Amino acid sequence: MMKNVTDLAIEQARLNGGKIATVSKVNINTRHDLSVAYTPGVAAVSSLIAADKRLARELTIKKNTVAVISDGSAVLGLGNIGAEASLPVMEGKAALFKRFANVDSVPIVLDTQNTEEIIRICKAISPTFGGINLEDISAPRCFEIEKRLIAECDIPVFHDDQHGTAIVVLAAVYNSLKLINTNLADVKIVINGGGSAGLSIAKKFLAAGAENIIVVDKSGIISESDVASLAPHHLEIAKVTNKSNLCGTLEDALIDANIFIGVSAPGALHKEWIKKMADKPIIFAMANPVPEIFPDEALEAGAYIVGTGRSDFPNQINNVLAFPGIFRGALDAKATKITEKMQLAAAAGIASLVPENELSPTNIIPDVFQEGVARVVAKAVIASF
Amino acid sequence: MMKNVTDLAIEQARLNGGKIATVSKVNINTRHDLSVAYTPGVAAVSSLIAADKRLARELTIKKNTVAVISDGSAVLGLGNIGAEASLPVMEGKAALFKRFANVDSVPIVLDTQNTEEIIRICKAISPTFGGINLEDISAPRCFEIEKRLIAECDIPVFHDDQHGTAIVVLAAVYNSLKLINTNLADVKIVINGGGSAGLSIAKKFLAAGAENIIVVDKSGIISESDVASLAPHHLEIAKVTNKSNLCGTLEDALIDANIFIGVSAPGALHKEWIKKMADKPIIFAMANPVPEIFPDEALEAGAYIVGTGRSDFPNQINNVLAFPGIFRGALDAKATKITEKMQLAAAAGIASLVPENELSPTNIIPDVFQEGVARVVAKAVIASF
Repeated sequence: MMKNVTDLAIEQARLNGGKIATVSKVNINTRHDLSVAYTPGVAAVSSLIAADKRLARELTIKKNTVAVISDGSAVLGLGNIGAEASLPVMEGKAALFKRFANVDSVPIVLDTQNTEEIIRICKAISPTFGGINLEDISAPRCFEIEKRLIAECDIPVFHDDQHGTAIVVLAAVYNSLKLINTNLADVKIVINGGGSAGLSIAKKFLAAGAENIIVVDKSGIISESDVASLAPHHLEIAKVTNKSNLCGTLEDALIDANIFIGVSAPGALHKEWIKKMADKPIIFAMANPVPEIFPDEALEAGAYIVGTGRSDFPNQINNVLAFPGIFRGALDAKATKITEKMQLAAAAGIASLVPENELSPTNIIPDVFQEGVARVVAKAVIASF
Repeated sequence: MMKNVTDLAIEQARLNGGKIATVSKVNINTRHDLSVAYTPGVAAVSSLIAADKRLARELTIKKNTVAVISDGSAVLGLGNIGAEASLPVMEGKAALFKRFANVDSVPIVLDTQNTEEIIRICKAISPTFGGINLEDISAPRCFEIEKRLIAECDIPVFHDDQHGTAIVVLAAVYNSLKLINTNLADVKIVINGGGSAGLSIAKKFLAAGAENIIVVDKSGIISESDVASLAPHHLEIAKVTNKSNLCGTLEDALIDANIFIGVSAPGALHKEWIKKMADKPIIFAMANPVPEIFPDEALEAGAYIVGTGRSDFPNQINNVLAFPGIFRGALDAKATKITEKMQLAAAAGIASLVPENELSPTNIIPDVFQEGVARVVAKAVIASF
């Protein structure tokens, strides 16, 4: 009988005791080797960096190493499971960095969930690394942590849960719009989910030129007219979306919408509501593993393109398409930030990986194992730097 | 013309951009691989650890990974050169951990030299690691930092600058005493240097059974009679050494001494003073690269055994003999501390690597490249656990 994925994952962990290892890049087999790789030779390298610390990005692991940092507060579907329990996820991420973009990556899980303390720790350890990938930190703390670290660190800081999905779904939308011959500025987009991913999607789409976005949260359409009851991060998004201050439910929001983007909950999108959308509706139902609506149902209801987070349906929106190449590009460019412009360039790079003559409603986004994805993304990021 | 060590070290750094890399221990070549190594499979491993976080030491990188942490405040002979500039040294240390004991090791350099902040950061990141090796942190801050972390962390914390040399010189003394047929309790030992290494040597030798130790600092013999002018860490050592409250200079201390241990400055030991020592004087002159006295001079003055920190003379006292095996043993034993008992066992283990029939005044300590050193040390550490 075939073992299931759960058993295999546990077996793999028992066997390996961790998904990544370190290796020495230098030979240490003779006294002479020792004197070059360690003392006294190493003092010469340290002295160069002491004179100009920017050289750390050429002469040390800072050149190619990204920290994957989490406080274990919002891990996968498991929630607030703490530092140690989040470590296998961060190790997996580190393994993906290496596999897809040859980025060395170190998981670091923190035994604190205090915003200011997390900021201080990340800043204090930042001389070691060429970039910081924040991971699985709960909202709204993640917004403040990322914003402050971007402002206060001299290396790129990127919260993948916010931006990774946003970049890949933007790539998918770029290609979907080619199939319906229209522009981002001309479509109505409904984002269901007011968490960190949903808000980042809204901002990224606005930056890319979208003009008509409505964000819907558990309590309904996010509208500036509810100013009294809105959390600060929702008020901020209300000010730049939903220009006509529409109130109501997801169903109300979807009337005449072209695109539904779900980062919400299983089954959140009903078949009947798709019928109220504009012609050739485009559906990205990314709740995982059970999407807002299953592709077959969505297609029955008239959807033209359907994407999910799952690998067993067409058009998988997987952030593995984005983060390895983005950090590869940022490291190679010696960037100090991963700007919005670099992120939009990454989305365009991902979209470009499906040749126009191969585009179809079931083929709008490259496969994660397609050769060269990270290289193309890195190149796009560097070009936009 | 042959390139010198300095040029080779810089060339190596330019070529490699860092002495260590990460590698993935898991295959990620198919969607199925992804689902085992990352989502959804990884959730099962996280759930196990969430239920019992001790399992992190079996199922994650915590099992085999040590952080090498520095604030760059006391780096080699270079002094307070800061975080980035200390990184090449920490990378070298990490490479040695891997090379000699297959310990995965991550350098982490800190952009703070505040004692309390360093303690907080080390504690906060400790869930990630199976041990912390503190490195090149200046005295007296290093004492407080190590003491507090040992008390407050549930993983071993070890400041190699303090204890590494102490353990190896203790091993060398164990074997030297075999050659002069006497015991640690019966010899007079003078330690020149009141820094972190000197104080650790004094404490370790006391723990091992030495009864007659005098520690000498720049301002002379450390004596309880100078209580008014002594720094706290010197007062502490004065209370347990120099029982007759001798005052004076290094020269005074050396009268009838059996063993000189120098962790001080080039040329600090004069030839004439060796002549005032007891019969068959034993000299460990470990200032590096220029020792307190060169071996040929010491031997001319009547020294019976001479060791230095250098690889180009016999009897090299090199802490590479100790730390890899000590952490190997501590990780394998899932130890939460590296106790004094474990450190003494490591010293005995190192000493045992020179068979008694091969012991001679120029062969009292194994070579760092001798096969199996770390294995023997680890075994001794585990047995004493």
